[in-house]
Amino acid sequence: MTEVVLNEASDSRIIPVILCGGSGTRLWPLSRKARPKQLLALTGPRTMLQMTLERVGDHAGFAPPIIVASADQADAVESQLESDSARLIVEPCARNTAPAIALAARSVEPDDLLLVMPSDHVIGNAPAFLNAVAAARPLAEEGWLVTFGITPTRAETGYGYIRRGASLAAGVFRADAFVEKPDAATAEHYLSDGGYDWNGGIFLFRADTFLAALAAHASDIAASVDTAMAAVTPADGPRLSPDADAFAKVRPQSVDHAVMEHADKVAVVPVEMDWSDIGSWQALHDYKAKDGAGTAAEGDVLLIDARNCLVRSDGPLVVAVGVEDLVIVATGDAVLVVPRAQSQRVQEVVARLKEKGDTKI
Amino acid sequence: MTEVVLNEASDSRIIPVILCGGSGTRLWPLSRKARPKQLLALTGPRTMLQMTLERVGDHAGFAPPIIVASADQADAVESQLESDSARLIVEPCARNTAPAIALAARSVEPDDLLLVMPSDHVIGNAPAFLNAVAAARPLAEEGWLVTFGITPTRAETGYGYIRRGASLAAGVFRADAFVEKPDAATAEHYLSDGGYDWNGGIFLFRADTFLAALAAHASDIAASVDTAMAAVTPADGPRLSPDADAFAKVRPQSVDHAVMEHADKVAVVPVEMDWSDIGSWQALHDYKAKDGAGTAAEGDVLLIDARNCLVRSDGPLVVAVGVEDLVIVATGDAVLVVPRAQSQRVQEVVARLKEKGDTKI
Repeated sequence: MTEVVLNEASDSRIIPVILCGGSGTRLWPLSRKARPKQLLALTGPRTMLQMTLERVGDHAGFAPPIIVASADQADAVESQLESDSARLIVEPCARNTAPAIALAARSVEPDDLLLVMPSDHVIGNAPAFLNAVAAARPLAEEGWLVTFGITPTRAETGYGYIRRGASLAAGVFRADAFVEKPDAATAEHYLSDGGYDWNGGIFLFRADTFLAALAAHASDIAASVDTAMAAVTPADGPRLSPDADAFAKVRPQSVDHAVMEHADKVAVVPVEMDWSDIGSWQALHDYKAKDGAGTAAEGDVLLIDARNCLVRSDGPLVVAVGVEDLVIVATGDAVLVVPRAQSQRVQEVVARLKEKGDTKI
Repeated sequence: MTEVVLNEASDSRIIPVILCGGSGTRLWPLSRKARPKQLLALTGPRTMLQMTLERVGDHAGFAPPIIVASADQADAVESQLESDSARLIVEPCARNTAPAIALAARSVEPDDLLLVMPSDHVIGNAPAFLNAVAAARPLAEEGWLVTFGITPTRAETGYGYIRRGASLAAGVFRADAFVEKPDAATAEHYLSDGGYDWNGGIFLFRADTFLAALAAHASDIAASVDTAMAAVTPADGPRLSPDADAFAKVRPQSVDHAVMEHADKVAVVPVEMDWSDIGSWQALHDYKAKDGAGTAAEGDVLLIDARNCLVRSDGPLVVAVGVEDLVIVATGDAVLVVPRAQSQRVQEVVARLKEKGDTKI
């Protein structure tokens, strides 16, 4: 794997901003409210968060990262850090991505470059990702909001798309439009058109560029975050705590809706980097290495004629015999069995458990 | 349910002899070497042994039972007894059913009637069973070895069969032959013929009748058991312990092979009594009450569109979504997922675990 080094002859730093506030339960029973996807080791021995941090470590020329995490996960996040150079910004409550990114932007120098990314995606081809960041950097330094577009590999209806416009530089395009999750026919059109990329929620911009765009297009969010961060200074140490009362008043909104869909100078860098958001057990099966029968297994598992299955145990011995196309996942207190093609129905499960007052969510 | 009372105007007692030495693992992961099927609650809140004892309790006119159990299960058996009138005979080692029954026969009066039965079968229609015992009794008192034939409900290849001969009394026939587990075509023939019953391993005979037949047809077993029981007297209390060295020398053999196939005066009483040996997860699914989708569930289970499944938990929450025709069984340390039609493959599982040195068998 080629090492790509970004910062050698440059003045401005790129600070990775890792958004760690997700609380999804799409990988139930493994993911729980208190143990979301980013804190789990799904594709190997290290957690999604740890692999995300590794990708943007100082070996590749990045400044120490900022992690934005929810208050109830802050300790768990800190326990996974393998270096003490990271700064943690603790969100007193969940307010979606625009406010989270604004907290980070308010904590750095105006001309710092922020590489914003989710903490719970996998990128198989890290050099391709770093090359895309290198391609994006000059425009970001000039005041563009740059997003990275994942080259689609299927007509996926679960993601938003970005339409590519005019070329701005080698590998960089104006972003013509951010479009919502399409229906199947529209997704097929996007795929065959070739001019659309998945919106993976990864961005590069100067802190001041972002804050100015936020002030222009979502001024209330900008103002509320300013208030929440008014008393916070870098001298507070590695853990920054915005004011809880002020942050509670922030209007929750995604960065796409608050800024990207409205700002003028938005660019997209398409990149093929073996990316997945591991958004379902099906997606994890797609991503993982499989045996000759198409089955991916992890943990204390015994397979006898199990074909095209995902079988995982974080607790008991799991034995699968003569089954096909199933997801079987066991933890110490819960077991899920569902056909792979129906793995999104985990959401129904979590809803039903919530209704019943079951604490195992 | 009609109460059938057997002993009202009779001198001789019927002593139930419950054979509790089985150590099957066909219901793995629930059944284990140290926790065989008879000690499990499979069809309701009480264990197979408890239900067996209940069926032949003193309310129905039976004398206190004798339970023949292996040494390593004796404590577990005793802990399940709901009355202190039972006598336990502890087998120092497993020697199959002929020696086990001989131990019981040697511990009672010669003219006592023994109703011998496995501890791990279910009988849905207890009055039908008791009526069959009442029908068998006069012949047993006259020195017949009476067996109870389960009326076949399918062309089962997993059981031995008994061919009915001439009528001996109302509902009682001479047993013309004991036949081994048939192939599928032969089983179909037995079923359509109508003159064959399943051999369920339930017998009624006088103790002296049995011991004489054993001496005649398996004299070495009779002699070895005599030696093992030489020093045992009823004064030993509720737990009788045959001599371990002597019993170890007994030749293991089933009562069918040792006695029934050879003796002259063998009768069969056919009985329809909603019987099952619960010999597999499939058999348990057949037996249990099911929901509208054909699924039988037990324990902490959440079902969403689970059709024709058996889902059981003795430990974690088990969630089954969108699955069909599966057996899903979880204990605290193991989970099994197998299609119902392949549930006999549990034997492969246990063999593989044994090979691997896994202790969860």
